[in-house]
Amino acid sequence: MSDRIRATYRITASESESRVRAEALAAEQSIEMPVSAVTDPRVLEGVLARVEEIRPHAGTFDVVLGIAAATTGNEAGQLANMLFGNCSLQPEVELVDVEFPEGYEKGFPGPRFGIEGLRVLTGARGRPLTCTALKPQGASIDYLAAVARTFALAGVDVIKDDHGIANQAYGTFAERVPAVQRAIDGANRESGGRTLYAPTFSGGARALAEQARIAHQHGVKMALVAPMIVGLPAFVELQADLDVPIMAHPAFAGGRIAPKVLLGKLFRLLGADATIFPNHGGRFSFGRETCLAIADAARAPWHGLRPVLPVPAGGMSVERVAEMRATYGEDCMLLVGGGLLSARDRLLERSREFVAAVAAPR
Amino acid sequence: MSDRIRATYRITASESESRVRAEALAAEQSIEMPVSAVTDPRVLEGVLARVEEIRPHAGTFDVVLGIAAATTGNEAGQLANMLFGNCSLQPEVELVDVEFPEGYEKGFPGPRFGIEGLRVLTGARGRPLTCTALKPQGASIDYLAAVARTFALAGVDVIKDDHGIANQAYGTFAERVPAVQRAIDGANRESGGRTLYAPTFSGGARALAEQARIAHQHGVKMALVAPMIVGLPAFVELQADLDVPIMAHPAFAGGRIAPKVLLGKLFRLLGADATIFPNHGGRFSFGRETCLAIADAARAPWHGLRPVLPVPAGGMSVERVAEMRATYGEDCMLLVGGGLLSARDRLLERSREFVAAVAAPR
Repeated sequence: MSDRIRATYRITASESESRVRAEALAAEQSIEMPVSAVTDPRVLEGVLARVEEIRPHAGTFDVVLGIAAATTGNEAGQLANMLFGNCSLQPEVELVDVEFPEGYEKGFPGPRFGIEGLRVLTGARGRPLTCTALKPQGASIDYLAAVARTFALAGVDVIKDDHGIANQAYGTFAERVPAVQRAIDGANRESGGRTLYAPTFSGGARALAEQARIAHQHGVKMALVAPMIVGLPAFVELQADLDVPIMAHPAFAGGRIAPKVLLGKLFRLLGADATIFPNHGGRFSFGRETCLAIADAARAPWHGLRPVLPVPAGGMSVERVAEMRATYGEDCMLLVGGGLLSARDRLLERSREFVAAVAAPR
Repeated sequence: MSDRIRATYRITASESESRVRAEALAAEQSIEMPVSAVTDPRVLEGVLARVEEIRPHAGTFDVVLGIAAATTGNEAGQLANMLFGNCSLQPEVELVDVEFPEGYEKGFPGPRFGIEGLRVLTGARGRPLTCTALKPQGASIDYLAAVARTFALAGVDVIKDDHGIANQAYGTFAERVPAVQRAIDGANRESGGRTLYAPTFSGGARALAEQARIAHQHGVKMALVAPMIVGLPAFVELQADLDVPIMAHPAFAGGRIAPKVLLGKLFRLLGADATIFPNHGGRFSFGRETCLAIADAARAPWHGLRPVLPVPAGGMSVERVAEMRATYGEDCMLLVGGGLLSARDRLLERSREFVAAVAAPR
């Protein structure tokens, strides 16, 4: 059994340099010192990253490093450090893929609910799940609760907070979340629906623990967390504290880790049950291939970790539902936020159109 | 008094689009929905980010947004979210500067020791401080302690762990840190020196709290933390728990936040006392201007926050000491790690040469 993580880096440099650059990267991402100065054979054998492959491209080349799993200490932050800590500062280097050795995943939570758990909780079968967002931050809690009630009456599966709605003075978690949950509970009782509320969890460990306590007390059944905002180690600790599905938000995740690696594989390993990404053709410039690669990384069989719901988002509309179902199939969650809120007085009707479009036979 | 954070973004797009792109960015980084769908005048007035300026460049333009300070909830993660959360996913957008309104900094720790506090602790006056690194990870604790003893006998001011040395099974914090601190204490007693040890703090909140306890118990007087690895909120909480100076490591900080903003301003606001960055001409491709901008952001008068030691690093050598002093002046810390360890059997002599070069009259 290998004890090596296979990390693939794309390096923008001439092919003639590839061997030298690959060896330098192997040192950078492990011992971070001249190999010639290492005296301990166990370090050379068991700690120094190995160059496993060099594959040339046009104007770039891919280097596969074998990173010793032991160097990551089975800890999310240190894993990020060994994969992309120092080389994040080298603009010519991009992390484009990662594969873990068998059994490595046991040191991490992985998704507790995954796709099937979310289908059980929402009762959504044979179609994508639906999701919308409470916005804007700064609106009164009464307003947000009323909007949430409307969405729930329309039968949207998941209502998440806008990722910018956190724990601000004008709408603290402690005031907002119980009020919104109550509004959704009321609507569910009236309609017989099972709409879930996923409020934004944010802040340091103490704040997160307090938010988990409040959420549990008020029957909140889902959570929205941006792993790169709260920090990867805090995300893992929060996952252990919460007994509800977690939706990962990609805020602050831009840069040169390939989206399928960070939003797909890493967030899945760390325990997200659903992962939001900016869909192609929206407000962001991810291409279709990038988006499909994220969805594939979230759902494909992988180390026995539960599959995770891909959540294409970022400027989506009801008009795109059919096309998104054709692209992602039924095991996904469709998120339309501003595209519903733009309806203003027709919010309930527009939300119902969204729900109906997702439930319609293909 | 303004309640707006001025955030400057460089957008790679044609000038004819600048107004539309600027308005879209203002919505993205605040309410994240169509402005036309907002009904609450308080949200339009007090929450929606404003386009304050548009400055064209060749092929790019700079947009200054006025982001409502209240939207950040005085919390490190949410500040990152409002500054660069969603637009981190737009590769054409780079955050190039940030200015806070007067008094905003009071919601954050800021450096507790800063440059003067580190000079008091080390006794280093009228010259740069010296720093080196314990490497490689995976070496035995006895070896690392012996290397630390040698560095301390040579009179290096600060010995930090390599940032890859964390809490791995082959050298846990609990085993390594007391042993290394003891070796340095012994050397200090023999030499009359005041060398500080800055071990790597890593992991989630529980691990960090336990490491803080161990460090305090064993008289550790400095800490090395990578804010992007532990997460910005955890970094702030750790700062409150520790009563020693903190050196920020830039691992995982690459991407499209200008280095002076993240490594200079933000890490200073959050309480780092010294900030490491990859110096020009080393293993990384930061240019001289970028490095000087980081140093300036760390040291220039700013909101009454203590100045922070710039720590140029990343493949530095004893031979470059004079040039680095000429570049950064005396209020800096010079970090040479692998460049000392390469001396192998001549480690003590080489370390003494480093110390002497930094202390030599200019």
